[in-house]
Order: sequence, then C-alpha cells, then structure tokens
Amino acid sequence: MAEKEESVKLLGFWGSPFSRRVEMALKLKGVPYEYLEEDLPNKTSLLLELNPVHKKVPVLVHNDKVLPESHLIIEYIDQTWKNNNPILPQDPYDKAMARFWAKFIDEQILTLGFRSLVKAEKGREVAIEETQEMLMFLEKQVTGKDFFGGKTVGFLDMVAGSMIPFCLARLWEGLGIDMIPKELFPELNRWISNLEDVEAVRECIPPRDKQVERMTKIAEKIMSA
Amino acid sequence: MAEKEESVKLLGFWGSPFSRRVEMALKLKGVPYEYLEEDLPNKTSLLLELNPVHKKVPVLVHNDKVLPESHLIIEYIDQTWKNNNPILPQDPYDKAMARFWAKFIDEQILTLGFRSLVKAEKGREVAIEETQEMLMFLEKQVTGKDFFGGKTVGFLDMVAGSMIPFCLARLWEGLGIDMIPKELFPELNRWISNLEDVEAVRECIPPRDKQVERMTKIAEKIMSA
Repeated sequence: MAEKEESVKLLGFWGSPFSRRVEMALKLKGVPYEYLEEDLPNKTSLLLELNPVHKKVPVLVHNDKVLPESHLIIEYIDQTWKNNNPILPQDPYDKAMARFWAKFIDEQILTLGFRSLVKAEKGREVAIEETQEMLMFLEKQVTGKDFFGGKTVGFLDMVAGSMIPFCLARLWEGLGIDMIPKELFPELNRWISNLEDVEAVRECIPPRDKQVERMTKIAEKIMSA
Repeated sequence: MAEKEESVKLLGFWGSPFSRRVEMALKLKGVPYEYLEEDLPNKTSLLLELNPVHKKVPVLVHNDKVLPESHLIIEYIDQTWKNNNPILPQDPYDKAMARFWAKFIDEQILTLGFRSLVKAEKGREVAIEETQEMLMFLEKQVTGKDFFGGKTVGFLDMVAGSMIPFCLARLWEGLGIDMIPKELFPELNRWISNLEDVEAVRECIPPRDKQVERMTKIAEKIMSA
C-alpha cells in the first residue's frame, strides 16, 4: 500500500499507449500519483534529464528512483505495491509468456498494424492480411478467458488494451478499415468490451475523436515521407 | 536444483549471442542440458514448430514448457533453479534497470554497432562516434565493479558479454576498427578480462576466427543490399 510520505510522479502523454497503460497499473493498484503531461514535440527539460537515453514517455519517478519504459514500470509497480491486485502472473513460465506476448504486441503488431499498413508497399490488402494474421495469435490467447490475465485485468491486458483497441484501432478507423471484425475475432471483441467495463481501464482510454485525429496525422506524415 | 527426471533442451546456434548467453545462465546455475545446434539458414522443423511466431533461436524446452527469447529464458532459468547463483537482482528497481540496459544493448548498441556502422550512410567516422557514445553509457554502469552484476556474473553481464566482446567486437575486428580502446574505455576493458576469467562464460565464447568470418559475411551481405 502506498504510504503517505511517498512521492509517485508519472511523466506521460495523453495519446501514448505506453503511458496510458502505466496509468492503468497505478489505478488498478490504487497508487496515488501526480501526472505530468508532456507536450511531445516540445519535450520538457525534465523529461530529457530523467530519460537521457531514449528521451521518451513514460517515466515513473518513485521517491528518488527514476524508471523509463512501460513494461519495466508496470512490473516495478507490481513488485513495489505487492498487496493489491497482482498484475503479472506468479508462475515463472506464465510470467515469461505474458512478457513474450507483450513484446509481440509492441513490436510485431505495432509495426505491421501501423507502419506497414500506412506505407503498404506490398499493397494495403496484404498489410491488412498480415496484421490480421498476427492478431489471430492474440485471438487464440484470450479464447475462453475474460482477460488475458484470466479473471482480472493483468499485464498483457494493459499492454494489448492500450495499444490495440485504444490506439491502433483509431488509426484503422480513420483509414476506414475494419481490422477486427466480430465474425473473424469474436474473442478479441468480447475482450475489448470486458476491458471497457473496468473503471480503471476506462479512465485511461484517450478521447476517441482526438485519438483518431492524432493517429491520422501521424499516418499522413509517414505516407508523405 | 535440477532433478534427475527433468528434461532441459536448448535449441541454439554457435555464433548467436542470444543463444550463447542462455548457455552461460545454464552453466552458471549448474543445470544439465541437451544442446541442439540449429543450422540457421536451414531451420529444422522442430524450431519452426516450437517458435512459430519468430522462428528464431534460442528456444528452451523445459519438460513440456517451450520458451523463446533470451531475456525471458534467462529470467525463467533464474526463477526455476532458485537456489544456485542468482542472476537477476532481487531489488525491483535494480532488476528493472538491469532489464533496461539489456534492452539498450540488444537494440541501440546492436543497431548502431552493426547495421548503422556497416551501412554508415553518414560516414563510418560518424557511426563509430555514435556507437562509442552508446558504449560510454555502459562504461559508466560498470565503473568500480567487477561485473555489471556486482561481485558475480549477472543478467546484464550475460547480455552485454555475449553481444559486445564476443560478437560485435569480432565484426569491428574484421573491419579494422578499434571500437573499445583501453584509453577511452578502461572499465569496459577490465570487465571483459574479468568475464574471460569465468569458466562458465569462457565455455560460451564462440571461436574467435570463426566468429570474425561469420560477422564479416553478414556485413558484406548488408553492404551489398
């Protein structure tokens, strides 16, 4: 449980799946925190000082400890505020697999579902098909479960949730692509609505229209590059 | 401690830093394992079946559990054979930072020290300088310590050791580049010779000439692409 004298600050950006998922973890753990919004094109000197290697949000500052990167921050939160809702699986193998799929989402799915789709050098149809092939791995992972974490929202739910329905799907929406149709992905669609029913998650969903606009702008930049 | 009835198999490749570091972990833990060498251009059907997402070594098969990706495998080994030499720091913050630097090595250093250097679109001098700037972060991390892990070889030593002195340095050697000169990097040089003094590490160093030859061939492929 967070002590009163503790200081927890999060440097984040409203549209970033990497920082929104950290907020999900803090809220689910019931950890009070001060949120410092970064205006991304104009990074603050505080961000550059705290994350000199990557210069990126999120950065968690817990008392005198400074930690970048969402996966590491969430695991740190899980181990530091141990008594409330566990986030990572306890079993070493299950934990490793949760981390495996999280990396898969932040690398493969992000690359295919965004950059490859927007550039679409082999054509958009191919890019959609390749993205859906990757999403099918996740469809299988969540089959028969309320959440990737089982009965409750866990690490993989935070990573996948922040990245897929609340970020990439806004890009797909802006491009007029139905990437996760109910007929093809019944389990993922069920999971998305389960996620939206959880208050701590719902509070971390970026405003839909604003996110569609942001993602569309990034896509246009990539296309014109 | 590994039980007699346990089965531990590792699919690896002699020149891969990712698979050699897993061997370091198994050896340091004293875990007996069966090693299955993959002939990388001709991947076995076993590898494709066990790692359908990435189709890459290393893959650890522990009884009925199949696990890809070196960072995950090493952490799994550490948590499964708990009683022998700990590999990851126990403190949540120290552990997160070890994982942070490990990722930094496998992404930034690998990209700069290999791909950017070989392609060297801004010129090789610039690529060398940028790589050395990144290496300087590690020089600071190991200052005053025998190993990144402190008094003993830890997670970051396995990741950095397998990648930098025993892999990338062979490429640099082949290109005639003195990337880690003693005057600039006294601490990293001290650390490399400390590493070479540890038997479990030494057993996992790929043969020097063979590795220089392999890395040079990969570099030539990239240059001609």
